[in-house]
Amino acid sequence: MSLSVALSPAGLDAEAFDGRAVLVVDVLRASTTVVTALQNGARAVIPVADKGEAGRLAATLDRDVSVLGGERGGEKLAGFALGNSPREYTEAAVAGKTVVLTTTNGTAALVRARGAARLAMGALVNAGASAAFLHRALDDGLDAVVLCAGWEGRVSLEDALCAGLLVDRLIDHPSAPPLNDGARIAHGLYRGARDDLARALFGADHTRRLVALGAGDDVALCARLDASDVLPVYRDNRLVADAA
Amino acid sequence: MSLSVALSPAGLDAEAFDGRAVLVVDVLRASTTVVTALQNGARAVIPVADKGEAGRLAATLDRDVSVLGGERGGEKLAGFALGNSPREYTEAAVAGKTVVLTTTNGTAALVRARGAARLAMGALVNAGASAAFLHRALDDGLDAVVLCAGWEGRVSLEDALCAGLLVDRLIDHPSAPPLNDGARIAHGLYRGARDDLARALFGADHTRRLVALGAGDDVALCARLDASDVLPVYRDNRLVADAA
Repeated sequence: MSLSVALSPAGLDAEAFDGRAVLVVDVLRASTTVVTALQNGARAVIPVADKGEAGRLAATLDRDVSVLGGERGGEKLAGFALGNSPREYTEAAVAGKTVVLTTTNGTAALVRARGAARLAMGALVNAGASAAFLHRALDDGLDAVVLCAGWEGRVSLEDALCAGLLVDRLIDHPSAPPLNDGARIAHGLYRGARDDLARALFGADHTRRLVALGAGDDVALCARLDASDVLPVYRDNRLVADAA
Repeated sequence: MSLSVALSPAGLDAEAFDGRAVLVVDVLRASTTVVTALQNGARAVIPVADKGEAGRLAATLDRDVSVLGGERGGEKLAGFALGNSPREYTEAAVAGKTVVLTTTNGTAALVRARGAARLAMGALVNAGASAAFLHRALDDGLDAVVLCAGWEGRVSLEDALCAGLLVDRLIDHPSAPPLNDGARIAHGLYRGARDDLARALFGADHTRRLVALGAGDDVALCARLDASDVLPVYRDNRLVADAA
């Protein structure tokens, strides 16, 4: 058993997740958006990698009980009710509904890891619940993997930072070591930035992209450490709030 | 202009290097091996991504003037005179000769970036020469990219550490900012490890692989900071020692 961090999904195939407990981290913004939607009463979030498939799936669901959300390149998709900003996933928008969600990186990473023994989504807003998920996995004798969604195959600062925070909370678990390279890099980054996480987040490439799209306010929302106890867990092709 | 770090080649296409100055970093071991070969009098190193192509190319060259080296998964290839350990690239083995080299990650990254305006190889052993290459590029108005070879598409600690050291040496250059996410992550890692780089290297996943292959001694060789002034530069499909 060990705790490892994949700084991006690149170079990993489905076997990399087989029999493991995997936490998909996409701080800006898919993980934060899913936590927010479930916190605000969504029954479930169905992650879909392909935007066409998302549209077709939503068309089969009753409009009264479903809502279609998603983005590409940070921008809301044409014809979709919601984008990928946690601000949009209010109680009024999602309570009692099933959200069909497709995003550039986060939902793709999730779909890629769906063969994992346990699969959940983590972010800074639910860091405590995410750390507890990883802790339980190690307790139960499973390898625990933090899978950073990154950006188009590349590493992103905000996900590495969140992964490093989770490593920091797990590092004393007797089954955590030996840490892999990704975990060491993420932890090193976190240790240097821990005194001002928000400042580090505001320096990220993706923050610059969001600011350019007029969504800079989302960064502060996504930086609220431990704002929610909700852990989105993946079961039967959908994410639901963990009952634990 | 800016200084950026790609923590692995994943997610980058040839356009990512177009018009830029690129330094390929593969600390364990290709970059270190190339520096060592040129330091010990090799006329040139021809990097080849495909091992079959390397064999065919070497077969067309006179044995008195060429030598075939390479590895896959860290092990010397069958029928090759040399593997990928810098220890093998002695004056006796390479002086006056052209080395045809194929490795799992380093030569592949180099071949991928061959459309760059300027292309060189860097490691800890030639960190000073590598920093000077990047510095000149920024002086000349080019974007400077440190491309970490990584391991099969994934990020590796030793390359990220070397990239972070280079960022540290360049960070005061007026054209360096804004640093991209990879550069910030690498720099954060380096700042936390700078007091004992060798110790950090010995914790890397690839060090464990090399130890298992009986090549653990190579790690100390590859950790010798600024041991050489040689900068391998890529011109006409081969790496030669920079005359500067």
